Amino acid sequence: MRTVLYYAPGSASFLVHWLMIEFGMDYELRRVDFDSDAQKSPEYLALNPNGVVPTLVIDGKALHEAPALAMWLAERHPQWGFAPAPDDPRRFEFLQWMFDLANEVQPLVRQWWFPNPVAGPEQREAVKTHAGRRLAGHWRRINAHLAAHGPYLLGAEPTVPDFFLVLLMRIGRKMEASALEFPHLAELARRMTARPTFATLYQREGLSEWP
Amino acid sequence: MRTVLYYAPGSASFLVHWLMIEFGMDYELRRVDFDSDAQKSPEYLALNPNGVVPTLVIDGKALHEAPALAMWLAERHPQWGFAPAPDDPRRFEFLQWMFDLANEVQPLVRQWWFPNPVAGPEQREAVKTHAGRRLAGHWRRINAHLAAHGPYLLGAEPTVPDFFLVLLMRIGRKMEASALEFPHLAELARRMTARPTFATLYQREGLSEWP
Repeated sequence: MRTVLYYAPGSASFLVHWLMIEFGMDYELRRVDFDSDAQKSPEYLALNPNGVVPTLVIDGKALHEAPALAMWLAERHPQWGFAPAPDDPRRFEFLQWMFDLANEVQPLVRQWWFPNPVAGPEQREAVKTHAGRRLAGHWRRINAHLAAHGPYLLGAEPTVPDFFLVLLMRIGRKMEASALEFPHLAELARRMTARPTFATLYQREGLSEWP
Repeated sequence: MRTVLYYAPGSASFLVHWLMIEFGMDYELRRVDFDSDAQKSPEYLALNPNGVVPTLVIDGKALHEAPALAMWLAERHPQWGFAPAPDDPRRFEFLQWMFDLANEVQPLVRQWWFPNPVAGPEQREAVKTHAGRRLAGHWRRINAHLAAHGPYLLGAEPTVPDFFLVLLMRIGRKMEASALEFPHLAELARRMTARPTFATLYQREGLSEWP
């Protein structure tokens, strides 16, 4: 099985790449150069019509949407326990956090990084300010959840939404409030980034900064 | 099992309500009055900290996030075939469409209906115009997918993402381009709204208009 991951360092592909390292998968890494807008090239759009990363190509078939890939890879590696099965009592909460992060939180970090499409270049600063303020509200809400039910989103053990949350904390690190100012988010980040796979991920993507 | 659905007519709760009717579930319906901002009341926020609908309360436990609820209910009613199981060859595509709609499309219709939080009241029109234009691009993309792989998102049979897509087409009906201008989206809407459960849903939520 030939597996190619199209990625950009520290972007949404980070979530999929991290799990691929956790699962010990073999893959080839291809960087998509955002500086030259390679994600909007006809060649790349043929793989991923949304023009975003990641795209995972398995035996010639192109798959995209980072949370879908993360969940699907975790389902195919059930021994890791990162995706509670339909008969697991944590199943609903697992799905709730996946869609909560994808639908409520991720759009805000995207608006901050790419504000122009939201309301035009003149409104960049207004869009970024509002996205930052709203993201801080989500950090407060998620921190309160972890205080009551942590240390991970589903309790005692890490699952896919925790990897997703670390991605979002990192992407949102320069916004109004850093997630690390919230003690239970900081504790989750500490635990997740202490995984040996996190160091491998940073090395392979050439990342530094944060936490 | 006592089941209560908190809803607002034609909002995201429409997706969950429709599937509950499909599955022949017994439930009590409670309307959340958006005109008096009841979704932001302390009582409601205790059920759903995001202050949005739907919330599904089952035996006192409050569950939220419409796509998570839709997927979870479909998993618990496997005989309907609306959520392809992990060993189904359509599994990845199913997850991809669920997150594509939740992450790329739904935020745009939300921005159009609730533009003020995005960049402040002065930028309302700019936000609405940009959201409308971007949504039209998604309709074009999804229409092209259906032309090649339809009549439903996963091919021959309807699944949860088709119900989700109808919700989004309906919520976005007043935006720049109506989804119904695109022939393959219109055909999917025609098939889905011909289901007898759609008439029951309209009657129970007191809806008219569209398609």
